Amino acid sequence: MEHVLNIQEQQVDPIEWHDPKNDPFKVNGFAWFDKEKEYRRMPKHSVMELPICVDELANCTSGGQIRFKTDSTKLLLKTRLSGVADIGHMAATGQSGFDIYIGEPGKQHYLATAIPPIHEKTYEAMLWDFTSTSSELREVTINLPLYQGIEELLIGIEPDAIIEAPTSYISNKRALFYGTSITQGGSASRPGMSYTNILSRRFQLEFINLGFSGSGKGEREVALTIRDIENPACLVIDYEANVTPDEYEKTLVSFIEIYREQHPLVPIMVMSRIPHALDILPEQNLETMRRRNHSKKVVDQFKQNGDSHIVFVDGSKLLGMRWHEGTVDGVHPNDYGFMKMANGLEAPLWSMLKSVGVV
Amino acid sequence: MEHVLNIQEQQVDPIEWHDPKNDPFKVNGFAWFDKEKEYRRMPKHSVMELPICVDELANCTSGGQIRFKTDSTKLLLKTRLSGVADIGHMAATGQSGFDIYIGEPGKQHYLATAIPPIHEKTYEAMLWDFTSTSSELREVTINLPLYQGIEELLIGIEPDAIIEAPTSYISNKRALFYGTSITQGGSASRPGMSYTNILSRRFQLEFINLGFSGSGKGEREVALTIRDIENPACLVIDYEANVTPDEYEKTLVSFIEIYREQHPLVPIMVMSRIPHALDILPEQNLETMRRRNHSKKVVDQFKQNGDSHIVFVDGSKLLGMRWHEGTVDGVHPNDYGFMKMANGLEAPLWSMLKSVGVV
Repeated sequence: MEHVLNIQEQQVDPIEWHDPKNDPFKVNGFAWFDKEKEYRRMPKHSVMELPICVDELANCTSGGQIRFKTDSTKLLLKTRLSGVADIGHMAATGQSGFDIYIGEPGKQHYLATAIPPIHEKTYEAMLWDFTSTSSELREVTINLPLYQGIEELLIGIEPDAIIEAPTSYISNKRALFYGTSITQGGSASRPGMSYTNILSRRFQLEFINLGFSGSGKGEREVALTIRDIENPACLVIDYEANVTPDEYEKTLVSFIEIYREQHPLVPIMVMSRIPHALDILPEQNLETMRRRNHSKKVVDQFKQNGDSHIVFVDGSKLLGMRWHEGTVDGVHPNDYGFMKMANGLEAPLWSMLKSVGVV
Repeated sequence: MEHVLNIQEQQVDPIEWHDPKNDPFKVNGFAWFDKEKEYRRMPKHSVMELPICVDELANCTSGGQIRFKTDSTKLLLKTRLSGVADIGHMAATGQSGFDIYIGEPGKQHYLATAIPPIHEKTYEAMLWDFTSTSSELREVTINLPLYQGIEELLIGIEPDAIIEAPTSYISNKRALFYGTSITQGGSASRPGMSYTNILSRRFQLEFINLGFSGSGKGEREVALTIRDIENPACLVIDYEANVTPDEYEKTLVSFIEIYREQHPLVPIMVMSRIPHALDILPEQNLETMRRRNHSKKVVDQFKQNGDSHIVFVDGSKLLGMRWHEGTVDGVHPNDYGFMKMANGLEAPLWSMLKSVGVV
């Protein structure tokens, strides 16, 4: 890989550049990271042939988090991404930016955003400069871009600063979310505002985002790949928005069955999709209801057949009374919509995880 | 003006293009529109010399709304803007897009967004296509771009469709908001999500946005210009975020006094700014508190001197418990932040307007 980012570069204030793929940094949110050391959401070398769009979108780093502790007065990052921001209904900060939270898992507070320059895929950003205040050991979570790949990422820390491993999660089990562009985080204003990233701050667990924009189609190869993810805490299935009612009825049962073969007791949540603006049209509403009814019916069937670890969550209720305000384009949540989704999903997710002793 | 938008252009389905500056369309949100017929937030030909940034930013159409009724099966717009979207922490839809709501004032529901193509300042967009459903007379509100000027705008309607004037407001008085980039709507995901536009949907009144990004400095010339706006329902003063404590202490009293000379009984709300992420730094927090205390002190002084139409609203409380989640960059609200602001401002605004019989 061509290194356009010069690790030795000297600044006015000396900064040491670290590759966060190495200890004591932790990279979370990528199920195959420990084996492959890639910022990638599906395996790079899969025996399974993945749908081409899923394979490509797996390089988008949605849900990826870099975690560590440091007392550095300044914190910087520089990165080379796989492309420039080019989505009209999403801020560049959401597509190609990074944001940073401080605090332990479960207590993180948002601090700052690395704003990508327009038209540039290589950039450097100051995440904090606490020169004027007291230095203290801070725990850092950096959320990675939602709709872009990372070719290289370096974290800049003062040479004499402490760098330590972050606080461990309360379990090595990971919450998995499979779905669509909405799951992937379109159109959050910054990475931390996707619904899976918001939820990740309310649990002390690793969250893994498997949302594939326009490509959440419940394919057999995807189900077989996802069931290979070790130590699942739960699986949330949220792909209604990418399939016709026919496609949904053809895929959902077998998607769950494939997963269940390997994981009979892992809690599964099937959620119907959030309301879209054009659901006010009778024809579209019929399709929406057909998919929602199918989600519910399938969950009921599994329950009747003795599966006590599967629940249905009605996504049509998640955006609340002002549901129509919750998207940027009639489909993709804005940050108001994502916060409503996270608020509505928190309790059912907690119940699921509690039922198997993960929280 | 060069017309790059060809009014006579024929489509597969014939569409008639209308300039919404003409009846029966109504253009709201521009205080000088009736005189100047410009999409502009300050007078074009002012006797007053406006600060140059304010003069330029006045061309950004934040708060502008096109209103009408139509039973057209299809609704389109085409526009030539003054520039392309280029803000890294704001979606192009917010900076240069349009969004559409249907329903009477006070009952509007979001329907769709015109998404600007990246790198283009001239574009056409379909706002609705109800071909598959029954035609009915719908009341339309189109919110104009928050951070871009409009050089030309045309509304596309089927030739045989009804076009009617919109429902009148309950009063000819207008709610005025003066302030900063936050007031102007940075960084809403689409125009309808700025806090003034959200609030405009909860009252049956015209709202006028006088937020000037980075340039809300409480200058005498700006105060003199704003006091010329006829039929004010109220004036919200929200410019703390653009001035140092010293500048704020030098300008606030005289800004209010200038306004009061002309409008002794118009309700005034002075709001302190929303919390910024770096308010956790002691030094910055001291400045924030100094400005907030000044806002409160000035309002108290006016009250003690017999002004019973002035209130202070503590902006530091508006974003609620999860305040730190409410911005895209530590400063500018995301849609979650703007919704919280609107929710928190609705009641004090209603009280103010009620006190003078406007609502």
